[in-house]
Amino acid sequence: MSRSLGAIVDALGGELVGDAGLSIRRLAPLASALPDELSFVAQARYASQIQTTAAGALIVPAALKEAAGLRGACIVADDPYLYFARLTQWWRAVHEPAEEPRVDPSASIHPSAHIGDRASIGPFAVVGAGVRVGADARIGPHCVLGREASVGEGTLLYARVSVGDRCVVGRRCILHPGVVIGADGFGFAPHQGEWVKIEQLGAVRIGDDVEIGANTCIDRGALDDTVIGNGVKLDNLIQIGHNVRIGDHTAMAGCVGVAGTATIGAHCSVGGGAIVLGHLTLADRVNISAATVVTRSIHQPGLYTGMFPIDDNAAWEKNAASLKQLGRLRERLRALEQRIDNDLPKS
Amino acid sequence: MSRSLGAIVDALGGELVGDAGLSIRRLAPLASALPDELSFVAQARYASQIQTTAAGALIVPAALKEAAGLRGACIVADDPYLYFARLTQWWRAVHEPAEEPRVDPSASIHPSAHIGDRASIGPFAVVGAGVRVGADARIGPHCVLGREASVGEGTLLYARVSVGDRCVVGRRCILHPGVVIGADGFGFAPHQGEWVKIEQLGAVRIGDDVEIGANTCIDRGALDDTVIGNGVKLDNLIQIGHNVRIGDHTAMAGCVGVAGTATIGAHCSVGGGAIVLGHLTLADRVNISAATVVTRSIHQPGLYTGMFPIDDNAAWEKNAASLKQLGRLRERLRALEQRIDNDLPKS
Amino acid sequence: MSRSLGAIVDALGGELVGDAGLSIRRLAPLASALPDELSFVAQARYASQIQTTAAGALIVPAALKEAAGLRGACIVADDPYLYFARLTQWWRAVHEPAEEPRVDPSASIHPSAHIGDRASIGPFAVVGAGVRVGADARIGPHCVLGREASVGEGTLLYARVSVGDRCVVGRRCILHPGVVIGADGFGFAPHQGEWVKIEQLGAVRIGDDVEIGANTCIDRGALDDTVIGNGVKLDNLIQIGHNVRIGDHTAMAGCVGVAGTATIGAHCSVGGGAIVLGHLTLADRVNISAATVVTRSIHQPGLYTGMFPIDDNAAWEKNAASLKQLGRLRERLRALEQRIDNDLPKS
Repeated sequence: MSRSLGAIVDALGGELVGDAGLSIRRLAPLASALPDELSFVAQARYASQIQTTAAGALIVPAALKEAAGLRGACIVADDPYLYFARLTQWWRAVHEPAEEPRVDPSASIHPSAHIGDRASIGPFAVVGAGVRVGADARIGPHCVLGREASVGEGTLLYARVSVGDRCVVGRRCILHPGVVIGADGFGFAPHQGEWVKIEQLGAVRIGDDVEIGANTCIDRGALDDTVIGNGVKLDNLIQIGHNVRIGDHTAMAGCVGVAGTATIGAHCSVGGGAIVLGHLTLADRVNISAATVVTRSIHQPGLYTGMFPIDDNAAWEKNAASLKQLGRLRERLRALEQRIDNDLPKS
Repeated sequence: MSRSLGAIVDALGGELVGDAGLSIRRLAPLASALPDELSFVAQARYASQIQTTAAGALIVPAALKEAAGLRGACIVADDPYLYFARLTQWWRAVHEPAEEPRVDPSASIHPSAHIGDRASIGPFAVVGAGVRVGADARIGPHCVLGREASVGEGTLLYARVSVGDRCVVGRRCILHPGVVIGADGFGFAPHQGEWVKIEQLGAVRIGDDVEIGANTCIDRGALDDTVIGNGVKLDNLIQIGHNVRIGDHTAMAGCVGVAGTATIGAHCSVGGGAIVLGHLTLADRVNISAATVVTRSIHQPGLYTGMFPIDDNAAWEKNAASLKQLGRLRERLRALEQRIDNDLPKS
Repeated sequence: MSRSLGAIVDALGGELVGDAGLSIRRLAPLASALPDELSFVAQARYASQIQTTAAGALIVPAALKEAAGLRGACIVADDPYLYFARLTQWWRAVHEPAEEPRVDPSASIHPSAHIGDRASIGPFAVVGAGVRVGADARIGPHCVLGREASVGEGTLLYARVSVGDRCVVGRRCILHPGVVIGADGFGFAPHQGEWVKIEQLGAVRIGDDVEIGANTCIDRGALDDTVIGNGVKLDNLIQIGHNVRIGDHTAMAGCVGVAGTATIGAHCSVGGGAIVLGHLTLADRVNISAATVVTRSIHQPGLYTGMFPIDDNAAWEKNAASLKQLGRLRERLRALEQRIDNDLPKS
């Protein structure tokens, strides 16, 4: 299952330095790559790594062409990391040819559903009334598409993805196993100490080129829809509350929680385990660090953080105990400043 | 699919001011409502919003009857938010009539299982030996009910909910897709650097009128059962450890984790992403803020918080660095106070 | 379904003090045990609990033999907690005899898959091309085993576990419902404000005797594999990013997130809700407290913590506000110290 360097450059471009016939067996990380493997150096500042890798060939930026060429074969690319990303796509397509489209006879498909050309429906999938599955879409085993749900052209649903009634998934999306689109948002009115359910009458609308990680949940809106923009990337085990809006090309790492009616801009990033409270607005290009709690709207692009620094437990205990008196410490400091201002002759 | 204001008041009560024949096409948020849509103003202090909404009609409290009546039709209700909640229920029932109960022929049902009157079993569901499904219950596609599990009357399990052996779900509950009831609690005895499994011999007992969000997990008890009270509402992606007890009508937002053998009172609330450590007790009516870590028992009702405030990253870095020396800062402050007390004449 | 104390000691060893014929109906916690129930006292320092329990018999350490013997029957064991763990295993085996191995006719099994002797395949499971299922393995309903995936001897997959293409699960593992092994790692190259997918060409390799909790996700590696060592125990709703390596016998509580390319040693523990950032290394025997964010590599064994202490909300607000000025407070303290050093005669 090898490919020659020449075949790679034929497919993806770049300038080849060295032996076009060099056979590449695998793409590999720089540190562990072997002589029949291809790796990459993303930026010129990593130049020193060129000398220590055993990789048979390297993808490098123009600034490293000479240094890399001295040690062996290389492909010169404007943006080696981007080149590498496209190479993984090509590599996978070459090595795992797409299966023939096929509607599994075990799937339960409502007669009123529309299944597009060359779409696949996996074993034991359940496709409800009025569903539309776009051309070339692949619906994995045990997926459930609720009434009048819609899945766009070329979208891939892995195993047991739920898409609730009337929810819409765009084109060329990838939804990993266990994703739940369109469960009820968390809405209740209090009444005499109990909770009265607010039926969630909205749906979820997901744009094109969105990827959603395993077991991530996106709730349907209460009245309006929950909306996920084009090109959004969500990692695993993320919770998106009802009526949230996420702008185009925003990315969130695993275990993030976004509470209801938050509005998040385009080109934002949210680090793993961060929590965004409800009814907030984040401007475009806001970056939230991991494990940070967003408690207020953020109107300026930039990086925002709030996390307790890790320490050895004994030091933490001491500092945390002091922290619970910090307001008092501040008052004591002010009192001391005033006393000194009053009593000590000015220097 | 419109309904007249008069039909709404006939069904749900309230005092109608204005045209009973006004046709309502949708329930909508105040800010975006259109002239053929119905919205609500929950409290008198939001009176100013009456002037800016384009909603065709409003649900308002008595104090706003006059103001709302001047601009158009309204329904006066003692508690507009509660009225709105009941309206969403009525609206959904009118627009999405319940499907006919049906046991799908593809479901795998053990001959010893008891399926109540008018209960539905979805495609590819697996119902084990000795299971009891109550009357009018609806078991979604790909649900798995373990041996001797029980699901109460009128309870709705969406797709692929697991209810483990001997676990009990009460009446009129709603469990969203991916919920796992009765996986093993996390219990191991250490032995020579390895972990020896403690089999989890208890089960899970869930009361009536409980709602559980998508992909939330409630573990079975080690010896006794894990117990969820009546009317409890759990959002998505929540983890409830073994032997936890949650009192009636407590609500938890998404991504909460409750460790084993915690006992949480009735009418509590836990904000999103909060963590409750094990073997703790929370009294009734304790409210925990989002992302807070509960490290000790709480015996008094009230609101409790512990989260690092978010800041721009540069300010956070500076403050976090100082925080790691806070115990030392406190000692320096005390030393300064003592020195001044000793050396500076009293003012 | 009772068992005599004598039968227990015959099966599991230990020294019996008292009536071998005493009938034990249930294993129970010390605080709630009844006269026909068996409980344990793990350590001599809990001696006082012997007097207050109503348990019919106790498992105790040698140091408590006399005290426990005075009140009734007991089993003396070197490590009562370990004895109890093994007792739960024996108790469960006695009370829930294993079902006969069976390949359900509804399962979809590729002809090229190899199913070992006495292995079970549950209803509606999907077993892909080239899959290997070891002898005595049990594959639950709705599981999906991707192409060339492998599940070891004696491993138990509960309902709807996904094991992705080419992923390997070892022997005697337990995977709870909803586990996702081998979804794509979260990898994208930025390009003109959009994200270009990096196909994840690695897989996941899981050792022997690993337990993985409900709805936990372990992503496949980008180029190399994600690797989980032998005897690792992961609780529910944990996210393990691509290329993470976890050493043998490490345990993690619920809701933990481990970002990509983190390397975690053997015999570590990570508390619930903790976050481990990517590209870090944790040495063997590092213990991370709950809800702590690991932002740097840790090279020494020990306990590490970073969490904001919980307080009543008013106190928290005051302290959190001061915290946002902590760097400034520190500067003010230093200025005061210098001023006093300059102006106040040395005492």
